[in-house]
Amino acid sequence: MMDIQKLLPFILRHENVAVIEHGILYITDRQSYPFEIRRVACSDASETADAIRRMVTQGGGPLEAALRAMVLTAMKKGKDRDAFDLAVRALAGARPTNTTMKRELEALLPDILMGFDQEDFVSYVDELVQSRLAHYDECYLAMARNGVRLVDDGDGILTTCFPEHSFFLTLALATEKGFSFRVFAPETRPFLQGARLTASGLAEMGYEHTLITDNMVSSFMSQGRIDKYMTASDLALRDRTVVNKIGTLGNAIAAKYYGIPYYPFAIGFDEGKKGISDIEIEYRDPGEVKMIRGVRTAPEGVSAEYPCFDIIPSSLVTGIVMPEGIVR
Amino acid sequence: MMDIQKLLPFILRHENVAVIEHGILYITDRQSYPFEIRRVACSDASETADAIRRMVTQGGGPLEAALRAMVLTAMKKGKDRDAFDLAVRALAGARPTNTTMKRELEALLPDILMGFDQEDFVSYVDELVQSRLAHYDECYLAMARNGVRLVDDGDGILTTCFPEHSFFLTLALATEKGFSFRVFAPETRPFLQGARLTASGLAEMGYEHTLITDNMVSSFMSQGRIDKYMTASDLALRDRTVVNKIGTLGNAIAAKYYGIPYYPFAIGFDEGKKGISDIEIEYRDPGEVKMIRGVRTAPEGVSAEYPCFDIIPSSLVTGIVMPEGIVR
Repeated sequence: MMDIQKLLPFILRHENVAVIEHGILYITDRQSYPFEIRRVACSDASETADAIRRMVTQGGGPLEAALRAMVLTAMKKGKDRDAFDLAVRALAGARPTNTTMKRELEALLPDILMGFDQEDFVSYVDELVQSRLAHYDECYLAMARNGVRLVDDGDGILTTCFPEHSFFLTLALATEKGFSFRVFAPETRPFLQGARLTASGLAEMGYEHTLITDNMVSSFMSQGRIDKYMTASDLALRDRTVVNKIGTLGNAIAAKYYGIPYYPFAIGFDEGKKGISDIEIEYRDPGEVKMIRGVRTAPEGVSAEYPCFDIIPSSLVTGIVMPEGIVR
Repeated sequence: MMDIQKLLPFILRHENVAVIEHGILYITDRQSYPFEIRRVACSDASETADAIRRMVTQGGGPLEAALRAMVLTAMKKGKDRDAFDLAVRALAGARPTNTTMKRELEALLPDILMGFDQEDFVSYVDELVQSRLAHYDECYLAMARNGVRLVDDGDGILTTCFPEHSFFLTLALATEKGFSFRVFAPETRPFLQGARLTASGLAEMGYEHTLITDNMVSSFMSQGRIDKYMTASDLALRDRTVVNKIGTLGNAIAAKYYGIPYYPFAIGFDEGKKGISDIEIEYRDPGEVKMIRGVRTAPEGVSAEYPCFDIIPSSLVTGIVMPEGIVR
């Protein structure tokens, strides 16, 4: 398989997401990046779950950190079934909206338990995890191969939040084809993943880009400068409903208004959910709306709310880019 | 006439917009408010124009500061026609999109020049300016009397940026009627007028409110929590095209999608402009997109753009609230 690591910006490469060194799991902090490269140390699965809950890493990061936490559990606890059950429960519950991590861990657990008869149990779990990470890398590349079929030379491509591996690989494949393009990255308040991760990743990879505030999307659409809208997704249902970072819905509505196709990437459907009513939307601390990088934006006495994700109905989704193809 | 000052939050009261003291025009800085109450001193019209260009005050503030600068010019320059011509030119050009200030100053100039035969010329200009400010106060109240007819008990009302006098007076009249309501205030990046001026003004007046980031509007609309969309406007054309702060267009598109009426307030039409192609949209320093209250949000090497206003086509405008009535 093609090595995708060099096609990814710093923050998406395995060694910069989560690694185990000397019995400690280090998660690269996506909240301080790129102003400070900081790693949060986790000594067990419960601390890893806590870091995920505090959004030290986000997007595809929690999945990778949680998988590594399984190796850490093997190292620390050995062949202890209760410890693995507990670890999976803590990690799976850390972010309620994105259920990929939960499904992955629950699927992996029987394989881990099957390894209790192995002499080198830690290596066994490590190999299991490595093979799952390689599987995801293959999925990302497969999605990118489908995604690039949707890109035309000269496109203005809007995204939202941090669109992760599949999007950056799509851009790499488009570049290979000799295409020029410009990515419009809304800053994505409150956590500014669009400014800190997406725009800086685009600049790092040398791609043409424009950072905008979240309220500028329609302005650029009305000027005819946006041709495609592509995002990651935190959840996709078989009925084509998609869940992604707050702001995605408004952009999808504007895209529909201007006749711009919207293509979210999704690694698979959450088969456990039948429809919108099964989706749990995470609400986070409203204080985060009143703060940017430690600086207050509103005085005390002001009330705020912080819904963390948008539910995008299938009528606004042109096609879902999946490893198997584009599902319309 | 009813005294509207006590129905307005601190930042909209005349004494906190722009005042002359000891031959200096002091403009309250809306960029540091409410974290710091700072006044910028201007010793002549040219310095006032410069302060307006730097957005020390915005919305209806520049009009008020520019009118006071006419009194300052009378005080400093006396009966000097060239000085007034120069002052009007500098002030009128300070913000290209909002043309109310320009039209007001150009209409006032002949009246000022007619006062050259007055013994107490400064008092003459001051009275002229006072009467214009009183005229605007009457217009604001008239708009609010029309605006409140659009509000229903229990409404969720979305606004954008800082909706100024007419909106706050509308809320005061709705309260007088015993109505309950909740105002949703998007923070309005890059300058955060929604967080700093609108949300803090709503909190100060004791109105129910929710501060949100700019990308949360559609989420709250999809939850059925927004019933009306009301904003100020920087410009309105007779064909019902409206210009307002960046973000207004996206919110108007989302409002249309959810069947929510959009009512901008406008003191009058710009009769000099026939259509969209006559509107000049101000672009500001892209560095402001990469910064919030002095803190960087994106690293160097990231490119940005900053269109300052949106053009909202008439098809998205349900009705324009004007002093004379609601123009549909």
